[in-house]
Amino acid sequence: MPFEYDRTIRFAETDAAGVVYFAHVLSLCHEAYEASLIAAGFELKSFFQNSEQAFPIVHASVDFRRPIYCGDRAFISVAPQNSENSSEFNIYYEVFIKNKSVAVAQTRHVCIHPNQRSRQPLSHEILQWIKLYQV
Amino acid sequence: MPFEYDRTIRFAETDAAGVVYFAHVLSLCHEAYEASLIAAGFELKSFFQNSEQAFPIVHASVDFRRPIYCGDRAFISVAPQNSENSSEFNIYYEVFIKNKSVAVAQTRHVCIHPNQRSRQPLSHEILQWIKLYQV
Amino acid sequence: MPFEYDRTIRFAETDAAGVVYFAHVLSLCHEAYEASLIAAGFELKSFFQNSEQAFPIVHASVDFRRPIYCGDRAFISVAPQNSENSSEFNIYYEVFIKNKSVAVAQTRHVCIHPNQRSRQPLSHEILQWIKLYQV
Amino acid sequence: MPFEYDRTIRFAETDAAGVVYFAHVLSLCHEAYEASLIAAGFELKSFFQNSEQAFPIVHASVDFRRPIYCGDRAFISVAPQNSENSSEFNIYYEVFIKNKSVAVAQTRHVCIHPNQRSRQPLSHEILQWIKLYQV
Repeated sequence: MPFEYDRTIRFAETDAAGVVYFAHVLSLCHEAYEASLIAAGFELKSFFQNSEQAFPIVHASVDFRRPIYCGDRAFISVAPQNSENSSEFNIYYEVFIKNKSVAVAQTRHVCIHPNQRSRQPLSHEILQWIKLYQV
Repeated sequence: MPFEYDRTIRFAETDAAGVVYFAHVLSLCHEAYEASLIAAGFELKSFFQNSEQAFPIVHASVDFRRPIYCGDRAFISVAPQNSENSSEFNIYYEVFIKNKSVAVAQTRHVCIHPNQRSRQPLSHEILQWIKLYQV
Repeated sequence: MPFEYDRTIRFAETDAAGVVYFAHVLSLCHEAYEASLIAAGFELKSFFQNSEQAFPIVHASVDFRRPIYCGDRAFISVAPQNSENSSEFNIYYEVFIKNKSVAVAQTRHVCIHPNQRSRQPLSHEILQWIKLYQV
Repeated sequence: MPFEYDRTIRFAETDAAGVVYFAHVLSLCHEAYEASLIAAGFELKSFFQNSEQAFPIVHASVDFRRPIYCGDRAFISVAPQNSENSSEFNIYYEVFIKNKSVAVAQTRHVCIHPNQRSRQPLSHEILQWIKLYQV
């Protein structure tokens, strides 16, 4: 079951065209990913500043179907998935407003040793998190 | 009674020093102000893109007492207050984490006709909102 | 010939992992696109708040090859390209630091009437801009 | 002599009211401060991730005199000043567009040991930088 997250779109996320600035939709998805980590018991500060392992994003994409406005209540589904590569995982996101899909996105993460930036296999904890929310 | 808002600090708000980037604390306060408008019945999109009246910020200040980290649960109090000037109002914010005050901030807003950008007295609706949450 | 843009990476773009936050790389590319519009004679304010035509992004993707740090001098190439669809164009970006490719990105834009949000063919002016910088 | 910095206002900095989002003006000032550090010979990455000393902002304020639009060419002056407190310094900023002052801002920085977060006197290097650009 994907993780479900919702929050109201804020003024700071809009641009002079009157809608959400495109790159902020990816930040919204990342925020939903963070909420899924908290829900699974991770402590965010140590997760993102861990000297043993980090999960930087190596690829991101997003498709926009409808404009998003300040004040819109956005629902985001977060579905992680194992990759064929044992040091990577993908996350698939879908953003809904009033039950309509307004955007879909994807991020690919690779597990590294933060200092050398060399790859390592996904840890047991992150594999558990994937299992919890994968489709 | 001030309006109370809370949310978790996100990774995108941090900087390479490992704490929340200073200007993002003002955005967090503005977000709490937006939440207070929603709570009082305003529709955000039309509030911020209204052709009759707008409330741009003419002054903002913030004092930082402690560092704020990714994953911290922040509680923000929002207390609006009338100004001596009938076309202005102030908002006073305080940010708490684990019951400790980590920042205080202030914004001053002026009511204008958006096209001419000339001043006008505060509307009845915004005066009601001030009354609702003022200290 | 692609348009070439460069600027220094700023502290506000970094996150607590010590590198540029992933979504900000797309904003950096959009900024380079804006610079190419200015170089071609467009006036940015009216370009982005035009009531006759707008070019919202319907798709964006980015691949990260190396981490980007505060203070890095980034060189971005901007290469627009016609789409088979007469109301769309693509932009291909590549970000270099010290002559090494650190990221590649793409955005797809569709030409619309801003109010109805219906599609329209690309204008003569934008076709000229594409011709100027396409590969 | 204050340090002088200029750059074009970007679409990502605007909001749905059609002007620059208020908190981004402080980020623009911080960016000008970063440029002054580079001009004085500092290496930004190590300046902001130094384990010996850091200069977090303890106070910031900004006054807005005129709206700022996408595409505007902004000139920012950066004037640091010693504080009576030997572990602090202030920076005064003024933002000009077409020779008109559109905003003034201030940040107050304190010199700390990053790990214990205890205060320490300003280093020789930062005192030199203040001397270089103070009024």
